[in-house]
Amino acid sequence: MKIVKVKTHPPYEILIEEGIFNRLSKELKSNFNFGKIAIITDTTVEKLWGEKLLEDLKKEKIESYMFSFPPGESSKTMNTVISLARGLLEKNFDRKDLIIALGGGVVGDIAGFLASIYLRGIPFIQIPTTLLAQVDASVGGKTGVDLPEGKNLLGTFYQPLKVYIDPLFLHTLPLKEVQNGLVEVIKYGCILKNKLFTFLKKKGQNIYHLESQDLEYIIYESCFLKAYVVSKDEKESGFRRILNFGHTLGHALETELNYTIPHGIAVGLGILAEALISEKLKVAEIRLFEPIKELFSHLNLPYKFSHLSLEINLENLLQHLSKDKKVWKGKLTIVLLKRIGKAIFYENPPLEIIKEVLYLLN
Amino acid sequence: MKIVKVKTHPPYEILIEEGIFNRLSKELKSNFNFGKIAIITDTTVEKLWGEKLLEDLKKEKIESYMFSFPPGESSKTMNTVISLARGLLEKNFDRKDLIIALGGGVVGDIAGFLASIYLRGIPFIQIPTTLLAQVDASVGGKTGVDLPEGKNLLGTFYQPLKVYIDPLFLHTLPLKEVQNGLVEVIKYGCILKNKLFTFLKKKGQNIYHLESQDLEYIIYESCFLKAYVVSKDEKESGFRRILNFGHTLGHALETELNYTIPHGIAVGLGILAEALISEKLKVAEIRLFEPIKELFSHLNLPYKFSHLSLEINLENLLQHLSKDKKVWKGKLTIVLLKRIGKAIFYENPPLEIIKEVLYLLN
Repeated sequence: MKIVKVKTHPPYEILIEEGIFNRLSKELKSNFNFGKIAIITDTTVEKLWGEKLLEDLKKEKIESYMFSFPPGESSKTMNTVISLARGLLEKNFDRKDLIIALGGGVVGDIAGFLASIYLRGIPFIQIPTTLLAQVDASVGGKTGVDLPEGKNLLGTFYQPLKVYIDPLFLHTLPLKEVQNGLVEVIKYGCILKNKLFTFLKKKGQNIYHLESQDLEYIIYESCFLKAYVVSKDEKESGFRRILNFGHTLGHALETELNYTIPHGIAVGLGILAEALISEKLKVAEIRLFEPIKELFSHLNLPYKFSHLSLEINLENLLQHLSKDKKVWKGKLTIVLLKRIGKAIFYENPPLEIIKEVLYLLN
Repeated sequence: MKIVKVKTHPPYEILIEEGIFNRLSKELKSNFNFGKIAIITDTTVEKLWGEKLLEDLKKEKIESYMFSFPPGESSKTMNTVISLARGLLEKNFDRKDLIIALGGGVVGDIAGFLASIYLRGIPFIQIPTTLLAQVDASVGGKTGVDLPEGKNLLGTFYQPLKVYIDPLFLHTLPLKEVQNGLVEVIKYGCILKNKLFTFLKKKGQNIYHLESQDLEYIIYESCFLKAYVVSKDEKESGFRRILNFGHTLGHALETELNYTIPHGIAVGLGILAEALISEKLKVAEIRLFEPIKELFSHLNLPYKFSHLSLEINLENLLQHLSKDKKVWKGKLTIVLLKRIGKAIFYENPPLEIIKEVLYLLN
């Protein structure tokens, strides 16, 4: 078993081990000081893993209930949170009980937010079932729901009691979903750890048939690196924005395409764009765009806008960036790379350079 | 000026001074590192004080906006919070901007909750305009909204940046509202400070025509005592429940009367009931019911159920208490008094004693 200690307030541990999900009910029972458990999940994960977990918990004589909602971003609304809360109230859940968030990023965001505001906060445990949720959402305590105006506009910083990560979940995950998470792993390599980057390079496409030991390694490294960043800046007042590498352009792309492509794919293209900007602005001390592009190619990830087979208006992309700029009082701060494994903040990159890069990636 | 330092995470200060509201815009300006300000209030307080504050802030060239909703508990819903959030988004409010909560307890609960979840938390300042909000809601960081199932079921613990208390507000406050707050002041005296209790006794009815110096004193003492309790138990896991003195029976009474009487009046009768229970159970080392009843009488506060001129079914009251008991896994913990100024926790008081006391107070 690998353990990442996340030094937030309060601190917590991430336990990573193959097969840990199967042992979870016993693990919880052996040290249980809660009243009852609510499993919060979506209807897809409910069938895949939720029902089994509920059964396991009942075998251990832990009073448990399941609450589920339709999968996907469209469930990330306050209405979902309110109806879950009313479900908990009906079963008399109070602060001595426990919520388990079982699922991907959307489930974690909703269940975490619910846990943070239900009776002003009840404990929750996270069991992320996608690679993206395992390497990203399981560290940092960000929770939230969407408003018509945008994503995650209402939410909290709220830390789980514990996170259990089982690489076994990934063996049944669609390839597209693994790719989605892998981009975040590449990101950690780019901004903080060259060794992780070269590991991915060495494995190449085999990454999609990884053995559990290798999966444990990349999940552990990603969680460890994110935990390092988050512990230095829990509430995102500065340094934590380093995690936005690839996300500034990635978000502009998601907005332009109305969220019709996976988050990871958008961020991937953002990573390539921001790497190229690093070179153009001579922030990069060595060539880094080509090595990153090669890795994307090895991993069958799109590395050109044209790979998406979608019409993209580059002028619109630039406008989305300007809007980003307005929100931050005229200052657009972007994360660039000095080399692979070392990132810096850069203020107000010239729009002509961004434009040039967008056309080069077209 | 009197200052109470509240040692929460993060800590903050409560500034108490007559006329501080009039100087607020200058005070904010002199040390201003925010982008813009949103005043959150209800439509009554908007007319009384909000418009003046907005004008003052604009005179200081601080970009400011007002957002208001109808007064009263019925506004304490997630819908109000969402529509306020969308108003803030329309004006591009971000984490570098500031919310001012201007009003009584309902405004503080809604605005504090909004501040705690808007973009995962933006700073807010509290300006409580009722005695109850000044001595109760301004300390402790409790925020929240209601659900059909009950009050404050969704919320957070979220500390303000600063609280400004101006006793001048109280001179225009209806007598009923002053009474409402005074009961909480009596409570602090009962559980923690005999001296505060005797001060109220000495002033008698004159309390309703208090000079600012005296008002500053009782507000300061109340905030100081509550801050002491809250700093020891920020998230209400134990000791903080001492503040529930009078509230166990008070809540049962509110529930039975469907919240048709002011909170303070219900808690007042709860205080008398729990004082009498303290005597009956021989927890009280000296007579304390009579002195408290006398104080209530001096202050023209109801001290018998019959004073309410409402039909109260005592059997129902007992049932509400049993429900309370079920929620806490069969354990009803009540706060009792050893003497005035010294409270203790007492588990499962015999229902017959409670019944006897209810009939005595009828």
